[in-house]
Amino acid sequence: MKPENDAFPQAQEIAQRVRSGEWRAVEVVQDTLRHIHARNGEINAFTCVTEARALREAEAVDQKVARGEDPGPLAGVPFAVKNLFDLQGEITLAGSKINRKDALAVADATAVRRLTAAGAVLVGALNMGEYAYDFTGENIHYGPSRNPHDRLRMTGGSSGGSGAAVAAGMVPIALGSDTNGSIRVPSSLCGIFGLKPTYGRLSRAGAFPFCPSLDHVGPLARSVADLALAYDAMQGADAADPVCADRATEPVSGSLADGVAGLKIAIAAGYFMQQATSAAEQALARVAAALNVTDLVEIPGTAQARAAAYLITNAESSNLHLDRLRHHAADYDPDVRDRMLAGTLLPASWNIQAQRFRRWYRAEVLKVFARYDLLLAPATPMSAPAIGQRYMELDGEQMMVRPHLGLYTQPLSFIGLPVVVVPVASAGAMPIGVQIIAAPWQEARIFKVARELELHGFTSPIPAR
Amino acid sequence: MKPENDAFPQAQEIAQRVRSGEWRAVEVVQDTLRHIHARNGEINAFTCVTEARALREAEAVDQKVARGEDPGPLAGVPFAVKNLFDLQGEITLAGSKINRKDALAVADATAVRRLTAAGAVLVGALNMGEYAYDFTGENIHYGPSRNPHDRLRMTGGSSGGSGAAVAAGMVPIALGSDTNGSIRVPSSLCGIFGLKPTYGRLSRAGAFPFCPSLDHVGPLARSVADLALAYDAMQGADAADPVCADRATEPVSGSLADGVAGLKIAIAAGYFMQQATSAAEQALARVAAALNVTDLVEIPGTAQARAAAYLITNAESSNLHLDRLRHHAADYDPDVRDRMLAGTLLPASWNIQAQRFRRWYRAEVLKVFARYDLLLAPATPMSAPAIGQRYMELDGEQMMVRPHLGLYTQPLSFIGLPVVVVPVASAGAMPIGVQIIAAPWQEARIFKVARELELHGFTSPIPAR
Repeated sequence: MKPENDAFPQAQEIAQRVRSGEWRAVEVVQDTLRHIHARNGEINAFTCVTEARALREAEAVDQKVARGEDPGPLAGVPFAVKNLFDLQGEITLAGSKINRKDALAVADATAVRRLTAAGAVLVGALNMGEYAYDFTGENIHYGPSRNPHDRLRMTGGSSGGSGAAVAAGMVPIALGSDTNGSIRVPSSLCGIFGLKPTYGRLSRAGAFPFCPSLDHVGPLARSVADLALAYDAMQGADAADPVCADRATEPVSGSLADGVAGLKIAIAAGYFMQQATSAAEQALARVAAALNVTDLVEIPGTAQARAAAYLITNAESSNLHLDRLRHHAADYDPDVRDRMLAGTLLPASWNIQAQRFRRWYRAEVLKVFARYDLLLAPATPMSAPAIGQRYMELDGEQMMVRPHLGLYTQPLSFIGLPVVVVPVASAGAMPIGVQIIAAPWQEARIFKVARELELHGFTSPIPAR
Repeated sequence: MKPENDAFPQAQEIAQRVRSGEWRAVEVVQDTLRHIHARNGEINAFTCVTEARALREAEAVDQKVARGEDPGPLAGVPFAVKNLFDLQGEITLAGSKINRKDALAVADATAVRRLTAAGAVLVGALNMGEYAYDFTGENIHYGPSRNPHDRLRMTGGSSGGSGAAVAAGMVPIALGSDTNGSIRVPSSLCGIFGLKPTYGRLSRAGAFPFCPSLDHVGPLARSVADLALAYDAMQGADAADPVCADRATEPVSGSLADGVAGLKIAIAAGYFMQQATSAAEQALARVAAALNVTDLVEIPGTAQARAAAYLITNAESSNLHLDRLRHHAADYDPDVRDRMLAGTLLPASWNIQAQRFRRWYRAEVLKVFARYDLLLAPATPMSAPAIGQRYMELDGEQMMVRPHLGLYTQPLSFIGLPVVVVPVASAGAMPIGVQIIAAPWQEARIFKVARELELHGFTSPIPAR
């Protein structure tokens, strides 16, 4: 067997054909490994390919099929994970050099374990911004992950390898993490779908923490159906992550075709319409037009929300890194280290105030969701900058690329809202994403709209070779 | 009518007689007001007597009885509240001079509203340590509240007026707040019962905040039945306090007589047995003997837990006070101001680490509660020090009185455990309290044991006149 388009296999098709016995999981994985080895030199998405494990797990899937057992909804689907997820027997690098001295992980992260239990086959770990403190996808130790649509451009970060691996068709599903935008920024810049679920929806147990108040994990994929399959497989309570210790499973895969009739949608105005390049404006306008959305709503306090998210990120991450900063300061990316060092000096009072503001802002945004089911906003202010580019001009102002690619993502993760990024492709231009945003726990609404947009042609563009 | 012992009326008796029409609420309140006016000069418990309101509310209770309507389970029961609870039309002083410029409260605090709805009659506001940052019951602006058992001794704080008013028989029920021990310390030093409920059990809405991560409100009373009646009347969800927005009511009054058979009880050893004076040791031993408790359990990390509680208190309270510190520094009690100023300088990283340690310590303590239903510990290391006393000697070490009276209370409020203080009286000596401690949400177990101890003679001593 062979997937019909071996560069861009879809999880849904693979699982169907493996479950029916038409394809063997081992052959799917062998094709995938060949493709990874052929492409990774130029894309630099993988930092580790777990070949032996992949073949062993694929073989187990095939045996289940042969025995007539249910191999799971993701049977034989290859996936890879940002290298901050614990993989049994591997070192959890989190994009760093310092962690190379760490012990091997004794168990898989919960998200990995659940995908594996659903029949998916882990094929490797993915490049990322050091300790996830990044929006570029560059990495001083492992080199930049490269955008499959233009290898001289950024993938976006910090889940840059995840975005690149999916956009290049190396795997149909990848996992990333998103504290301030680290799933959504690479999804936008690489032209794929990405889900940052509601804070507390998916277990983060076994994922290297960055800022526990704001950390989320989620999937990236090339179709809404694949994104939904991965999301559904990872849902459910996990005592190992206190924020989702009693979380029920609410699958979305079965209701993607329900349509969007009755859903009230508005465009997030004000803050979310400032500083966008025309590429971002046009992408938003196209999505809004496809959905017949014309209402505009403004959310007060959004600039302050982003500032507060920054501050909390800086304070919490620097606390988690104190010991490493004391003993391994020279082994950090200077861009990360200096932010961490600054974070150690922040007063407690500021962080407490930022957390208090967070409750206020969340209440303000919930008022908007009393009137609308979903909001639309650009995912990034621009499409992928060049690798190495330090500054960008937004609305006439020179701004640093690295912190400001998350301009539109930070205020939303700040209050834990679920968001799916939908890709918008234009001939001859780099792709860019639009955020579909819902009230907490309303992922299902987002998926219906994302599926509707996919039917309108908002699909992942296939990079030219 | 007249309560049989007008100095020490019990809420239960008053409510029964008022409900039956045997006593009139207005006469109960008139007697109470006379008693307050007669005693308050020497005790200094009240900072405000709400005479007109009290008579109006008592009259309304009597009218309900006359009409055959249910006047509520606390019909005609006088109560008073620490002056940090909002009372409609009064200034919420929170023990300060600065707040005198504040606007009048537009509504009662939730706890006050609920007691009033149950038929209780508010008679005034009570003296307290400035902004609740206190364990002595002294106040630089309003003078110290004085211990009814020895007016030259402290009441303990910060709910000092609450402890004094109840111990002196001025009211059968008072409300206090407890962030690190501010209900339990005055309960111990004044020889009465006091409840610090589970964090999140009782709404704090309308109570002037000190440290929202640790603030609790609760009742003080002279009997377990009265404590239970007040607690039951205040329970229930309140959207105005996020930590108890969806809290169900779990009344305890009906099950006080259930007995303690089957409850596994241990003495908290280690930290909780160090630095106690012999008075505290003997009180604990007497309670343990009455309950046939001999098991000892040690909880690791308790000294650190207290340090972390300090740090969080200092950081959060200084953030809430920033504006006042900037503009009214000279109007603070210097002992409070200097701690607040120090708090503004704490690094965010320390506070984050203290909150993280809190989760660890809570998990450790929950392991103990998997083996035992209840723990016993002293409430204070000594009985009431003299007013003005700055130092005390504990285990051969000179320690400041003001911060260290909460030695045994701080680690428990730190993780929100419910605690009732039971008074232990000895002829010729000042009373002192013992803490009955349960796992979160297990108040009912504590009440049964407190009632059992009351039957064994652990009752509030009546002060000599």
